[in-house]
Amino acid sequence: MEIKKEEISAWLMQLQDGICASLEKADGLSIFREENWEREEGGGGRTRVITNGNVLEKGGVNFSAVHGEAPEFLFRESAHSSALTNTDKKRPNFYATGVSIVLHPLNPFVPIIHMNVRYFETDAGSRWLGGGIDLSPHYIFEEDARYFHNELKKVCDKHHPEYYKKFKDWADEYFYLPHRKETRGIGGIFFDRLNEGDGMSFEKNLAFWKDVGLAFAPLYTELIRRNRNKTYEEKNKNWQLLRRGRYVEFNLVYDKGTRFGLETNGRVESILMSLPANAAWEYNKVLEAGSPESNTQSLLLKGINWAS
Amino acid sequence: MEIKKEEISAWLMQLQDGICASLEKADGLSIFREENWEREEGGGGRTRVITNGNVLEKGGVNFSAVHGEAPEFLFRESAHSSALTNTDKKRPNFYATGVSIVLHPLNPFVPIIHMNVRYFETDAGSRWLGGGIDLSPHYIFEEDARYFHNELKKVCDKHHPEYYKKFKDWADEYFYLPHRKETRGIGGIFFDRLNEGDGMSFEKNLAFWKDVGLAFAPLYTELIRRNRNKTYEEKNKNWQLLRRGRYVEFNLVYDKGTRFGLETNGRVESILMSLPANAAWEYNKVLEAGSPESNTQSLLLKGINWAS
Repeated sequence: MEIKKEEISAWLMQLQDGICASLEKADGLSIFREENWEREEGGGGRTRVITNGNVLEKGGVNFSAVHGEAPEFLFRESAHSSALTNTDKKRPNFYATGVSIVLHPLNPFVPIIHMNVRYFETDAGSRWLGGGIDLSPHYIFEEDARYFHNELKKVCDKHHPEYYKKFKDWADEYFYLPHRKETRGIGGIFFDRLNEGDGMSFEKNLAFWKDVGLAFAPLYTELIRRNRNKTYEEKNKNWQLLRRGRYVEFNLVYDKGTRFGLETNGRVESILMSLPANAAWEYNKVLEAGSPESNTQSLLLKGINWAS
Repeated sequence: MEIKKEEISAWLMQLQDGICASLEKADGLSIFREENWEREEGGGGRTRVITNGNVLEKGGVNFSAVHGEAPEFLFRESAHSSALTNTDKKRPNFYATGVSIVLHPLNPFVPIIHMNVRYFETDAGSRWLGGGIDLSPHYIFEEDARYFHNELKKVCDKHHPEYYKKFKDWADEYFYLPHRKETRGIGGIFFDRLNEGDGMSFEKNLAFWKDVGLAFAPLYTELIRRNRNKTYEEKNKNWQLLRRGRYVEFNLVYDKGTRFGLETNGRVESILMSLPANAAWEYNKVLEAGSPESNTQSLLLKGINWAS
């Protein structure tokens, strides 16, 4: 069965619709504003942004499908990968489509979440899937962290016994700020250049990838439900701003999607919808020993086994 | 006359002292907090940070002098430069010393300023000077912009008739956000790898470079004096936060000093002292035609001749 890129894009647009509907229902106040945009070199997107909601202060659920001649740096990168074939050296045309989400909640006890599912192909015959979901709580609650990872593990285990471990470790590596020696949050799963192998056909991996996308809305709306009514004080809000500062640092310094977008003349407002409404930095911040902030900071580490 | 690196570092520490004293006097409330730090691979620095002042909300005046085996990427970069000699290919030791300043004022009508003077040498015989001063007003006042550029022009003209034009253009190129298609502010001067040439000896360039450093305090304290008592409203403060957001974008995405620091295991709190106390992002912000904010935005362009 041949999988067509147009079908994948159509599925992704449906996914975007479903997620936006779930989030609007959970928020109960604000709705998504939509902007359609075109890319000069080919393709475009459907950006949806929500602001000033009951729950969601700022966030976006973006769909895009862009195509054209593959930028040169993609091929530099491919030197380390088996995903692009040799024939790709001819600068083929590429097609990239995906849904990308970042949500910054108002209440500091509700976590920031990020999700992305993406598909890439070239007309020289390469294709792959990438994606992931990761959580950045301003305050880490162990029961939520365990719930989040166990739900992701269920999605993975349904398709391959080693996927959770492999993609959880990958998320720990990817969502890491070397200059801070801390993870962005409690991780999640991350994968890239998934094609076939490990006993999985491309079609089987596509089914896994779709399940990752479909897992997002129930998972995050449950985390909203658990935390949305917790009362908070100014000190909690200040800590949220500092954690958002770290989120900004990660996205602008390290995030490949953001840097790829900025370097390829992407639509800047869609790319940077991932930034929070506001953020703060404090010189040499010292945390009170034993405080919830200090407890959260101490858990921003790779390799914590939340799903056990 | 042989110039010793230790003398340059000693001069820079004096410069730091003088600038901090001038700024404390201008601020009238807060004083600099000092932290001495050492770099594992060699050398260290004297970080001075001011927060919650009358005028200065957050800023730093940092001195550093680091040395050790030159990192590999310096030599990749040197392929495009005549500043490093062939013998440098042996991975010599380097010595880098400088003073770096970023100041974020509380009042949105006082501009953000950045200054840096730096000296670099290797034991294989290369050495150069770099530096610059640039201004990022939240609101551009033409008379201040002209004053700022004319003062910089005087400093340059004293040493070389073409330096102002050359280094002003360089600042326009350097302090630019391609993804926003806007300059960071009104520019200033920027230069790098200055050694000898254009009829200038290294010693003459060193005298120019020192004058750039010495120009900073009188220039910025005058801009503070002109604007510190202007009254502002919430909408001015909101606009300041958005401009600070762009400053964060520039520093984390493009600034070479910041990226160099983060990639070479520099002291993160000293490097990121350049970030403001807080910043904001708004999706697809639309400016009111004819407003002061819109006027400022329209002047964030390369090639404006402010010194005429």
